[in-house]
Amino acid sequence: MTSTFSDAIELSASRLGTSICIGLDAEMSMIPRMLSGSANPILEFNRQVIAATSDIASAYKMNLAFYEADGRRGLDALYGTLDAIPDSVLKIGDAKRGDIPNTARAYAKAMFIEFGFNATTVNPYMGMDTLEPFFTYTNRGVFILALTSNPGSSEFQRQTIGNLPLYIHVIDRALAAFGDSGSIGFVVGATHPDDLAEIRRRIGRTVPLLIPGIGSQGGDVAATLDSNAGGIALFNVSRAIITVDPETADATAEIRSSALKYRDQLLQFANRA
Amino acid sequence: MTSTFSDAIELSASRLGTSICIGLDAEMSMIPRMLSGSANPILEFNRQVIAATSDIASAYKMNLAFYEADGRRGLDALYGTLDAIPDSVLKIGDAKRGDIPNTARAYAKAMFIEFGFNATTVNPYMGMDTLEPFFTYTNRGVFILALTSNPGSSEFQRQTIGNLPLYIHVIDRALAAFGDSGSIGFVVGATHPDDLAEIRRRIGRTVPLLIPGIGSQGGDVAATLDSNAGGIALFNVSRAIITVDPETADATAEIRSSALKYRDQLLQFANRA
Repeated sequence: MTSTFSDAIELSASRLGTSICIGLDAEMSMIPRMLSGSANPILEFNRQVIAATSDIASAYKMNLAFYEADGRRGLDALYGTLDAIPDSVLKIGDAKRGDIPNTARAYAKAMFIEFGFNATTVNPYMGMDTLEPFFTYTNRGVFILALTSNPGSSEFQRQTIGNLPLYIHVIDRALAAFGDSGSIGFVVGATHPDDLAEIRRRIGRTVPLLIPGIGSQGGDVAATLDSNAGGIALFNVSRAIITVDPETADATAEIRSSALKYRDQLLQFANRA
Repeated sequence: MTSTFSDAIELSASRLGTSICIGLDAEMSMIPRMLSGSANPILEFNRQVIAATSDIASAYKMNLAFYEADGRRGLDALYGTLDAIPDSVLKIGDAKRGDIPNTARAYAKAMFIEFGFNATTVNPYMGMDTLEPFFTYTNRGVFILALTSNPGSSEFQRQTIGNLPLYIHVIDRALAAFGDSGSIGFVVGATHPDDLAEIRRRIGRTVPLLIPGIGSQGGDVAATLDSNAGGIALFNVSRAIITVDPETADATAEIRSSALKYRDQLLQFANRA
């Protein structure tokens, strides 16, 4: 039994050679035609993604937006997908929640108890008291948004306060508040390799990073691995793996092929580093 | 028919004399014993709150955390509560979402189409591109977190960039990006009356503010109304209205009494201003 969330990532990486995280973020418009008639197309599609990739994935990341947008059927898809993920693969709930402490307790309960995610993402804008309830759960991961992958990340996250950008203040304050306990981690987009390298130097090797932005958003695998310098991380790819030809007769084969491509790139550059 | 969300608040205020927003944020631990045996205690309790207050409320605010924490039954409670709210009362979905544009589109669809809220709250940390999808819906309100009511709000929101705190940059940039179109609004806690006054001077009378923090969080009605200076606003009270004696035989009467107390205070000080 692993003792912390950070340990669980490292264990998975040592078994698989790298830590690819696959985003189960299908929207109805992405579901191949052959599944569109099923009772719950997103759930059926996710089951195919899992069947195609669970032997090479360290984690699956589910962004709750796509499940909420599909109402009751979306919630059924969320539970059904969580049930379909083997115990050997970590379950990340990408929810980016942040609310006053009383409310944050309810969000933490939802993510860790009701849904049973191993880790979640949280938004630091409202301050450390709004993140604290997530850290009361043992063996769970809490990825705090630092420097996100989207273009708008420069608007506030890069604003300078004193001599440092806001996202560095977020990292420093969160580490001061919660410590490198095996629970704390940060979200840093693969679209910012230079900043990623600096963040990794600052936080050391053992604080996990969740690194989205590889694939559809343009992040480069080699640059990301170089910047991460062997630190504990989950490299997330969502749309670039789960997007298939809508007319495909074998979504599983297409998805596995895309997943292996990214996995192999991660292995290749990990071994070079 | 009102043309914008801002108009809808103003119309309600002119009819009721003030704009009280009641938070339907019950947790299981708050449900009176007489309802604890029902199939969906939170839904039954919300129906009692609505029956007790719908003639004096401008809006109900539902924080999604409390519904998510109760799983499938929580989602049933969310839909059932939305169904129970009369058309004359606005429905605010307090979700504080914020995610990359592709994902933000799904959240906006969830809040405005799937759930049918008239307005939602959003988190600006990730930048304007993550808020833009919410503004593509006409006649809906988008309350951007500016200066929140919790103690931790000082940690990042009050950090100075140039000569101004981050929350003022958020307000200025959002108004520059989306304009005072009747959709945009801001969340400013009643726990900061001096800053509220300065924000109201800066944004003018017509940009709606969602003002939480009255009641359990310590915000004062008179100070809040003075600071708001007659601007379009929703004054939110949650726990101070919906918290009842767990042994009560008549939750409706208790809730109405608490709601009238806050409504009367709001009327009294509104008329003084």
